[in-house]
Amino acid sequence: MQWTKVLGLGLGAAALLGLGIILGHFAIPKKANSPAPSDLDLEILETVMGQLDAHRIRENLRELSREPHLASSPRDEDLVQLLLQRWKDPESGLDSAEAFTYEVLLSFPSQEQPNVVDIAMTLPPPPTVGPTGDIIHSCHRTEENVTGEQGGPDVVQPYAAYAPSGTPQGLLVYANRGTEEDFKELQTQGIKLEGTIALTRYGGVGRGAKAVNAAKHGVAGVLVYTDPADINDGLSLPNETFPYSWYLPPSGVERGSYYKYFGDPLTPYLPAIPSSFRLDLANVSGFPPIPTQPIVCSLGCPVNVSVYNRLELRNSSNVLGIIRGAVEPDRYVLYGNHRDSWVHGAVDPSSGTAVLLELSRVLGTLLKKGTWRPRRSIVFASWGAEEFGLIGSTEFTEEFFNKLQERTVAYINVDIAVFANATLRVQGTPPVQSVVFSATKEIRSPGPGDLSIYDNWIRYFNRSSPVYGLVPSLGSLGAGSDYAPFIHFLGISSMDIAYTYDRSKTSARIYPTYHTAFDTFDYVDKFLDPGFSSHQAVARTAGSIILRLSDSFFLPLKVSDYSETLRSFLQAAQQDLGALLEQHSISLGPLVTAVEKFEAAAAALGQRISVLQKGSPDPLQVRMLNDQLMLLERTFLNPRAFPEERYYSHVLWATRTGSVATFPGLSNACSRARDTASGSEAWAEVQRQLSIVVTALEAAAATLRPVADL
Amino acid sequence: MQWTKVLGLGLGAAALLGLGIILGHFAIPKKANSPAPSDLDLEILETVMGQLDAHRIRENLRELSREPHLASSPRDEDLVQLLLQRWKDPESGLDSAEAFTYEVLLSFPSQEQPNVVDIAMTLPPPPTVGPTGDIIHSCHRTEENVTGEQGGPDVVQPYAAYAPSGTPQGLLVYANRGTEEDFKELQTQGIKLEGTIALTRYGGVGRGAKAVNAAKHGVAGVLVYTDPADINDGLSLPNETFPYSWYLPPSGVERGSYYKYFGDPLTPYLPAIPSSFRLDLANVSGFPPIPTQPIVCSLGCPVNVSVYNRLELRNSSNVLGIIRGAVEPDRYVLYGNHRDSWVHGAVDPSSGTAVLLELSRVLGTLLKKGTWRPRRSIVFASWGAEEFGLIGSTEFTEEFFNKLQERTVAYINVDIAVFANATLRVQGTPPVQSVVFSATKEIRSPGPGDLSIYDNWIRYFNRSSPVYGLVPSLGSLGAGSDYAPFIHFLGISSMDIAYTYDRSKTSARIYPTYHTAFDTFDYVDKFLDPGFSSHQAVARTAGSIILRLSDSFFLPLKVSDYSETLRSFLQAAQQDLGALLEQHSISLGPLVTAVEKFEAAAAALGQRISVLQKGSPDPLQVRMLNDQLMLLERTFLNPRAFPEERYYSHVLWATRTGSVATFPGLSNACSRARDTASGSEAWAEVQRQLSIVVTALEAAAATLRPVADL
Repeated sequence: MQWTKVLGLGLGAAALLGLGIILGHFAIPKKANSPAPSDLDLEILETVMGQLDAHRIRENLRELSREPHLASSPRDEDLVQLLLQRWKDPESGLDSAEAFTYEVLLSFPSQEQPNVVDIAMTLPPPPTVGPTGDIIHSCHRTEENVTGEQGGPDVVQPYAAYAPSGTPQGLLVYANRGTEEDFKELQTQGIKLEGTIALTRYGGVGRGAKAVNAAKHGVAGVLVYTDPADINDGLSLPNETFPYSWYLPPSGVERGSYYKYFGDPLTPYLPAIPSSFRLDLANVSGFPPIPTQPIVCSLGCPVNVSVYNRLELRNSSNVLGIIRGAVEPDRYVLYGNHRDSWVHGAVDPSSGTAVLLELSRVLGTLLKKGTWRPRRSIVFASWGAEEFGLIGSTEFTEEFFNKLQERTVAYINVDIAVFANATLRVQGTPPVQSVVFSATKEIRSPGPGDLSIYDNWIRYFNRSSPVYGLVPSLGSLGAGSDYAPFIHFLGISSMDIAYTYDRSKTSARIYPTYHTAFDTFDYVDKFLDPGFSSHQAVARTAGSIILRLSDSFFLPLKVSDYSETLRSFLQAAQQDLGALLEQHSISLGPLVTAVEKFEAAAAALGQRISVLQKGSPDPLQVRMLNDQLMLLERTFLNPRAFPEERYYSHVLWATRTGSVATFPGLSNACSRARDTASGSEAWAEVQRQLSIVVTALEAAAATLRPVADL
Repeated sequence: MQWTKVLGLGLGAAALLGLGIILGHFAIPKKANSPAPSDLDLEILETVMGQLDAHRIRENLRELSREPHLASSPRDEDLVQLLLQRWKDPESGLDSAEAFTYEVLLSFPSQEQPNVVDIAMTLPPPPTVGPTGDIIHSCHRTEENVTGEQGGPDVVQPYAAYAPSGTPQGLLVYANRGTEEDFKELQTQGIKLEGTIALTRYGGVGRGAKAVNAAKHGVAGVLVYTDPADINDGLSLPNETFPYSWYLPPSGVERGSYYKYFGDPLTPYLPAIPSSFRLDLANVSGFPPIPTQPIVCSLGCPVNVSVYNRLELRNSSNVLGIIRGAVEPDRYVLYGNHRDSWVHGAVDPSSGTAVLLELSRVLGTLLKKGTWRPRRSIVFASWGAEEFGLIGSTEFTEEFFNKLQERTVAYINVDIAVFANATLRVQGTPPVQSVVFSATKEIRSPGPGDLSIYDNWIRYFNRSSPVYGLVPSLGSLGAGSDYAPFIHFLGISSMDIAYTYDRSKTSARIYPTYHTAFDTFDYVDKFLDPGFSSHQAVARTAGSIILRLSDSFFLPLKVSDYSETLRSFLQAAQQDLGALLEQHSISLGPLVTAVEKFEAAAAALGQRISVLQKGSPDPLQVRMLNDQLMLLERTFLNPRAFPEERYYSHVLWATRTGSVATFPGLSNACSRARDTASGSEAWAEVQRQLSIVVTALEAAAATLRPVADL
C-alpha cells in the first residue's frame, strides 16, 4: 500500500474516530451517576390499580374486625403484630417497619362496678344518698347480643370516655342536643335545672360540650342517647334493624370520647414517652365536668346515674412502615389510619385499615420484586388510641415535629373507608384538589354505568368554581380524625378520603351502628359494601394519589387553588362584616391587598412551572420549586394566633364559631366584639386577628415568589 | 477498489466510528445541562481576601460617621440612600437592593423641654410640687463640645429611651448597679427608699432592669451614670481622656434603650407595617416604670429630675441587597449590621457598616465582571433602629418568618467591627465554630509577628476541647445585637464577629465612648484602629466565612460540635443539680439518653459526609444532607417553652438567670423551685422544662439520622 494511501486511511480513520468520539460525547444522552430524574410511570400506576383486590380487602377486614380491639387491649396489641408482620414480609413488605409506643391516659368503665342508669319511682329526699326508691327500670348495661358478637368480656360497656365517676340522682330533664341554646331555652321555660339529670341526644354539638353546657346550669349528670330519627331514618323495630338492615338495633349505644382537646391529656405539646412530664390530674382541662353516660332509654322521671369510669395509664402503639424514596428519600408522603376501635370496629376504623393493608401489599410487592421504587419516601402509619382523642397521631407529631414539618409533602387519611357506597367524599386543603381530580378521573366508579369516580362524585357533591366551572366540591377538614394534628398543628397539606351516602336515600347522621357493638364484618359485608367494590374504589383513589405525590417530578400540589378559598373568605368578610368593621374604623384594605398579592404570586409560580415542564429542568431546580409548593401550607401557621385553642395554629382552618364563613380568627373575634363598644379589648382582638391573617398571606405570597426576590 | 476492500474499509471505518462513539460517550466527562456542582473556589477566595482594602474601609467610616444618624433622622435616611446607591452600582453593586420601611414606636427627648437633673439645697415639703429650693448644681444637659462634633442640633441629648416622662423630686440614694441585690442591701441597712431618687452606675444588669428593680422599692426616679472605674480604667481628667486618649471625657454620658424586650413595642410578633394592629399604649409592657435619666454627676443630696421623653411613631428602614445564587438561590447566607447610631456612631455601628460596604463592593465587583457568582444567595442587610431594641431586624424576621426559617443557612452579624485591636472575638452557636476556624487559620493577623488570626486569637480566648485540644473559645450569643431574633426567634445558626481588647491592658466594661458624642471618626482613626488593619482583618474573616458558606458544595456547618456543649450542660446539671433533683425524685436519665442519641446521630452523619466527600456525590444527595445541617438548629426551638419570655424560643440559648451553667430552662426552673416543697408548681415546671429539653434533643437526633430511618 502506498504511504499516501496509508496516510489517507490513517487520517480517515482518525477523522472517523474523532467523529465517533464527538457523536458519542454529544449525541447520546449519558446516564448520570445520580438516579435519573424519574417521573410518574403510568404503567406502574396501571399495574397498581389493577392489583388492588376487593377480595383481599374483604379478607383483611374479616381478620381486623374478628375481635373487639379497643385501644391498648390485648387484641389491639395483636393487631400491632399483624401490621408489623405484613410490613416486614419478605415478599410484600416495606423497607422497614417499627412500633412506637406511648404511655397515655385512657378512660375505661370499671369491670367490677358497671355504670348503671336506674329509673326510680321516687327521688330520695336530699341530701340523703342511699336507697333510691323502687327501681322501675334499669337501662341496659350492654347491647343485646343479636349476632353472637355483642357479648363477651372484650365488648366494652357503652360509656363516655373521660367522664368523671359519680352517682348523681335527680329528676330527668330532656335537653334536646345539649347545646348552649337548648339549656337557655329550658331556663326560659322556667324549668329548674339545678340538680337534674339532663337527657340529651347525640348530634349538634361535640360530645363533651353537652356536659360542659349542662354543668354551667347546675345539672348533676348527663345522659346521651341516639335518637332513631337522627340515625335510623326513624326506624327502630328489631326486624327493621341489623341484622335485617343497616339500621341500628334498639339496644345499640354510641360510645365515644368526651375529651375536649386531642392528644394525650397529660402531655400536651410533649410526646407521651414514659419520661415526659405529666400534668397533675388536678391541672388537666377538657374533661367533662360531671358524670355522663350514653344510654338507650329515654323516659321522664327520677333517675339514678352511677358512673364508675376509671382513668388508666396504658401503653398504646403506632406502627410505622416506610418505603424509602430512590431520589428524594427526605420527602415523605404520609398515609395513615387509626387501628383501635370501640368494639369490633369493622367500619370504624377497620374498613380504612383493610384498604391500608391492601395498598401496602401491592406497593410492597412491586418493591420487593425490584419493579419499582418511588422517587420520594412513602410512610404508612397505623395510629393508636384515636377513639380517645387522636392520641397516637398527636403524640407522633409532637415527637417528630420538626422532621415532619420540614419534610412531609402531604398527609392522606383514610379512616372509615366506606360509610356507604354511593359516592366518593373528600375533605382537604385546596392544594390537594388537583391531584384528587387527576386520580379520580382515571378510575372507574363501582356503581352502575360507565362513569369515572370523578363523574359519579360530581353528581353528589359539586360547586361552581370561578376558574374551572362545575367541579366536585371538597369539604374542609375539622378535627374528626387523625389528619387534625397534621393540618392544624404542623401545617401539612392534608386530605381525608371515603365513600359515602346518597343523601336522598338516608338522613342518618352517620352510619347507624357507629361506635356500637353492631359495627361488625357481617354488617359491612351484607349492607355497607357487598362485594367491597367501594372499598376497592377508595383503595384505587388513595393509591393513585400516593403514587402521584411520591413519583411525580413536579409535586402535584396546585397552590393557586388556594386563591379561590381566599377570595371567598374575603368576599364573605366584605359582605357580612365590612359595614360593621367600618363602623369601628377597621379597614379590610390590607386584607384585599394581601389576597391580591397571594393570587399574583401563585399564578406566576404556576406559569414558571408550566414553562419549566416543557423543557428538561435540572432536578435541583425542580426541588426548589417543589419546596415552595410543599411549604406553602406552613406559612399559614401561627402558634400565637389562638392561644386558648390547643394545637390549632392554622389561621385559615382553625375552628370557626363565628357565623360568617370567612377567616376563622376574624369571624370569631367579630362575633365576640359585635356587641361591645369601639375601643374594647374585643375590638382590639379583631384588629389583631386581621393583622395575623394579613401577615400570613403576605408571608405566603413571599414564599411563592421567585426565591431570589427581595 | 474491490468490494471486499470497500467492505473492509467500511467495516473498519464503522468500527473506528463505533470506538470513537464509545470513547466519546464513556471516557470524556460530560458537562451536564444543570449548573455544574460548584464548590468553594480557592482562587476566588484569595482574590477577595486581597481586594478587601483597609483604606476604603476607612473612607467608608469617615462618610458613615460624618454626621449623627439617630434612627429615623434625616441623616439616617440619607444613609439608606447611600446604601441603595452602593448596592445598585452598575460596576460594584449587587443583583438587587431595596429599602423596607416599618412604622415603629421610638422614644426621644423633647427638643423644647430638655430633660434636667438639678441638685437642690432643700427638698420642698411634699406634696407641694413647685419651686424646689435653691438649685446648687444643674447637671450637664449635653456633653462638652471637645472636638467640635459634640454640638449642634443633631446630637441627641443623653437620655434613657422609653423612660416615661415625669418630674420626681427626692433624696438621692446611691444604689450601686441597681440590681435586686443592691436594693435589698439598702433595705437591710435600714435606708428608706420610698420616694427617693436612686443613683446607679451602668453595668451589672440591663439598663431597664435598674428602673424596674428601683420601682419595686418605691423609688421615684433613677439616674444612671458611667463610673470611670468601669470604663476608663479609673482615669477621668480632661487631659487623660479623648482627644488625648481613647478614654471617655468627664462630660460623656452613655445613651441607650431602656426597653426590656426587643422589636417594635407596639407590634410584638407582627411586622410593623402601617396596617398592622398596634397595642394600646396602656397595654405595652417592658418600658421602665419610672422616670430615668443617664447623667454624669454623682453627688448625694436632694435632686429634682425632669424627664420629658416623648414616644413617636417614626418610619425606619432596613436596606436589603442580594446576590442571587447560581445553583441554590433558595439558600440564603445572611450578613447584616444596623445602620442607626446614637450620635455619630463611628464605632457603634459604623465600623461594622464600613466593613459591610467594603465586602459588598468586592463581591459586587466580581459579580458584575462575570468572574463569580456564588452557589447560594448572599443577602446583605442594613438594619434600622437597632439602638432602640433591635427593631429593624426583629420586624424583618416577623415579616418573613417562614421564608427565612426554611431557607437561611446562617446569619453573620458584624455590628461594632472593632472594639479594640488586640484579637478576634466571635460569639456563635457550635455549628459555626469550624467554618470560623477554617477561615481564620488562613488569614494573617494584623498585629506584630507572623501569626494567623486564629493563632493570635487562641492567645486571648481559649479552652481545652475534649475533641480538638486547645482551641479558641467562642462566646455564646445573648441579645446584644441584631443576631438575637435570628437565633432566638427563628433558630438560625448565627455568629457575631469583632476585633476586641487585650484584657490585660484595660478593664473597661466596653470601649469608653460607647453611646456618647465622643464616638467619632477621629476616635477610631487615632486610638481604636490606626491604619484600619483590624477592620480589614474582620472584613477578611467575615468575607471568608461568607464565601465558605455560600460556595461550599457541602455546607461547612459542623453539627457534631454541638455535642461538646450538650455534654458540658449535662455534666453541669449532673454535678450541680443532680442531688437536688434526686431529692425531688426527678431523674436526669432521659436527658443522658437524649444527649447520647444526639452524639451518636451527629457523629454518624459526620461519617456519612466524609465518605460522600471522597466520591462524586449527586447534587440532590448533597442538598438533602445540607438541609439536615442547616435545619438542625431549628429543632432546638420551642415557641411554648418560655411563654413569658418574648421571642426567646431556643431551648439551649434562652436567657439563663439560674446559677448553674446548664440548659437554661432547667437552670432557671431549678433556681425558682429550690426552696419550695416537692409537688409544688415550681417543681412541676422543672419537670416540664426537663421534658422540653429531652424532646428537643430527641428531635434533633431524629433530624440528623438517615432521612429514611423511622
